[in-house]
Amino acid sequence: MSVIEKTIEASANTSLPHVEQTEGTSSPSTTDRIFGAHRGGKIRVAGKFPIDSPETLSLVYTPGVGHVCRAIAADPAQAYQVTGKGNSVAVVTDGSAVLGLGNLGPQAALPAMEGKAMLFRQLAGIDAWPICLNTQDPDEIVCTVTAIAPSFGGIHLEDISAPRCFDIESRLQDALNIPVMHDDQHGTAVVVLAALHNALKVTGRRLDQVTIVVNGLGAAGIACCQLLLAAGATYLRGCDRQGLVLTGRPQALRRARELLPDIIRYDRPVGTLRDALQGAHVFIGVSAGNVLTPDDLKLMAQDPIVFALANPDPELPPELGYRYCRVYATGRSDHPNQINNLLAYPGMFRGALDSGATTFNESMQLTVASALADLVPAHSLSEHNIIPGVFDPHVVPAVAKAVCRAARDTGVARASDRLDPAQSPNRYFSVNIAEN
Amino acid sequence: MSVIEKTIEASANTSLPHVEQTEGTSSPSTTDRIFGAHRGGKIRVAGKFPIDSPETLSLVYTPGVGHVCRAIAADPAQAYQVTGKGNSVAVVTDGSAVLGLGNLGPQAALPAMEGKAMLFRQLAGIDAWPICLNTQDPDEIVCTVTAIAPSFGGIHLEDISAPRCFDIESRLQDALNIPVMHDDQHGTAVVVLAALHNALKVTGRRLDQVTIVVNGLGAAGIACCQLLLAAGATYLRGCDRQGLVLTGRPQALRRARELLPDIIRYDRPVGTLRDALQGAHVFIGVSAGNVLTPDDLKLMAQDPIVFALANPDPELPPELGYRYCRVYATGRSDHPNQINNLLAYPGMFRGALDSGATTFNESMQLTVASALADLVPAHSLSEHNIIPGVFDPHVVPAVAKAVCRAARDTGVARASDRLDPAQSPNRYFSVNIAEN
Repeated sequence: MSVIEKTIEASANTSLPHVEQTEGTSSPSTTDRIFGAHRGGKIRVAGKFPIDSPETLSLVYTPGVGHVCRAIAADPAQAYQVTGKGNSVAVVTDGSAVLGLGNLGPQAALPAMEGKAMLFRQLAGIDAWPICLNTQDPDEIVCTVTAIAPSFGGIHLEDISAPRCFDIESRLQDALNIPVMHDDQHGTAVVVLAALHNALKVTGRRLDQVTIVVNGLGAAGIACCQLLLAAGATYLRGCDRQGLVLTGRPQALRRARELLPDIIRYDRPVGTLRDALQGAHVFIGVSAGNVLTPDDLKLMAQDPIVFALANPDPELPPELGYRYCRVYATGRSDHPNQINNLLAYPGMFRGALDSGATTFNESMQLTVASALADLVPAHSLSEHNIIPGVFDPHVVPAVAKAVCRAARDTGVARASDRLDPAQSPNRYFSVNIAEN
Repeated sequence: MSVIEKTIEASANTSLPHVEQTEGTSSPSTTDRIFGAHRGGKIRVAGKFPIDSPETLSLVYTPGVGHVCRAIAADPAQAYQVTGKGNSVAVVTDGSAVLGLGNLGPQAALPAMEGKAMLFRQLAGIDAWPICLNTQDPDEIVCTVTAIAPSFGGIHLEDISAPRCFDIESRLQDALNIPVMHDDQHGTAVVVLAALHNALKVTGRRLDQVTIVVNGLGAAGIACCQLLLAAGATYLRGCDRQGLVLTGRPQALRRARELLPDIIRYDRPVGTLRDALQGAHVFIGVSAGNVLTPDDLKLMAQDPIVFALANPDPELPPELGYRYCRVYATGRSDHPNQINNLLAYPGMFRGALDSGATTFNESMQLTVASALADLVPAHSLSEHNIIPGVFDPHVVPAVAKAVCRAARDTGVARASDRLDPAQSPNRYFSVNIAEN
């Protein structure tokens, strides 16, 4: 038991709010430890140095601060030098799709957003602050996030339900000159693609030659389809509760990839999930627990790759997954091959902030997926080791570096022209993008 | 030179953004030290403990956090126990009145808001986050702040110009069930009233018997007039650039105090500032530098009290103030009797959060003003010592305690009924409101 776990347990032994056990998955003592860990919130704001004299007060506050305010008014880019903007991310939700629990509302989403903020700090040195919105109207969300943007260097959208999330993200990216990412979409897609790169190496196949079934076409599923097509996937079948609703000639799909949600025939499926599985090499599940059976797997091509990412119960239970699949991965931390958004978003924001990227683009996602895949060296690559672990210290620097490189290559890096990268005060991993 | 000042100076010796000197008040080296102190921002977000194992990750993030989210969805008041909401304040501005510098816009306001956040932490242990709004439309401001409120336990409005600020504050307080305070109004008013209590003790007069001139009827001036009337002031004259625009029979003014801005005759002054000064005992300036002369002071009653709060140049220069006034105070840190908002807002929010107050009310302001005045013991009270210093460690606890007491007495304290105060995770000074 680590120091912090002991602290949490000690805290849990003091009186805690009474909570109805609504699910049988945690014992009361585990629940006490959970609530102990969250008590009073999980993040804090600290000054970077003490204000311990009238002189310091006059430097950091009036009258000194007035000079800094005026400098920014004269040249807004100065905000990246003399404020925390360039290292700050708003973690924004409307509470419409909290974890896998549904529309719990903004107040109930706060513990999850605090968790993200905590991870941003620990893994990537980013100052992230949770913003839970008391509205689920897309127009109001876009207005609100646009309004608060001056304080932040990036916007991390989280737990916003589909299909609203596509439009909200896209409109925000258009409205703002800072990067906006909906993690449920792109965080998932990037890590799935990274894992698939390596799973295909293990099975000796190529992305443009395999048939991939994506099951579940919400935020994550759509983004996976789009990124797979961008990466060169050719044979793609998308299923939802209704069955096979996304298929078509490879070229048509590729051309349509940015508008994929618009061409899905939710009301007129062209087949069943079992139809989709016929001869498929890869199954990517971002849907619900236990929708696959061993019989279904027999429909697939030899050596099937199955990413069963539904949480907490995967589309195919682990005991069956390891038995019937060549490569089997889940979203769970208690099994090998954990496909976790956490591998992507801290480093992606780190790289975007370090390069002063004005946007997240597909090129960054592709570059990051390759960089993540490359972190598993050839000699240790195997069925049970296709993706690095979330505590691997190489992950965030590698992802950040990939984003910086892609930002420069696609012309969306601001650091190189508007700021002197060597002087940027927040560069955490000192990724000199000029060197890459 | 303190450790931090050395750090700042060292930082300033590295290359800094070039800034045009637009004012002659700071030497280049002071300016370098100022920019050094602000470099990269002045605040950071930290996790309260490390996430150092998969087990901790599963407690603070998925799947554990789901239990906490559900508990809040079932009972929103739980957010005060298991998130940082009850200790978090949004420091909100639209950049329309940044310090004394005017409408510099939201991006330029960020260094000042960071300074406030830094002081909130240092003085009151509060997690404050700057929110600079990319809109100056009152409706959009109200919508935006209402939308982001779930993440916060209080809203600190700052540097929003008059008269928009009155309406914005009032609408937000109506819309939200957390306290909202516009510091430029109430922070100033509370500290002015506290200082006046003691200045009157020094001159042996009573608040209901003196004639008070308030010069400058913006956000701070109006709030001062309102609070003075609430505290029992009877003879009140308000002046603006046009001259004497607020006067009337004592009872009428008292009845109208909440709607004071509506009865000011900006376009039809009834006299000049010199008319207003005839026989007055107190002058409170929240206007502009050097508007008073020794001749003006001769119009006032004997032993005049002058609060010359314009920054950086007071309404009456210090060398004249000390010579011609019985009690003279400024907003400056380099002179005795500094009347500084900083004496009020950290403790006021501390008390509001600790008591779970749903609002800030006038009773709190009056109680805090008395508590602040009482911090100067009778034996050390003098013309040059009417108000405690901003680094006095007794200030925040005394102010917080006063707010808790007033919150309970006026029935707006939430802690006592909806939460168990002894269990509140964020209580910083452990002010047991039941004891007061």
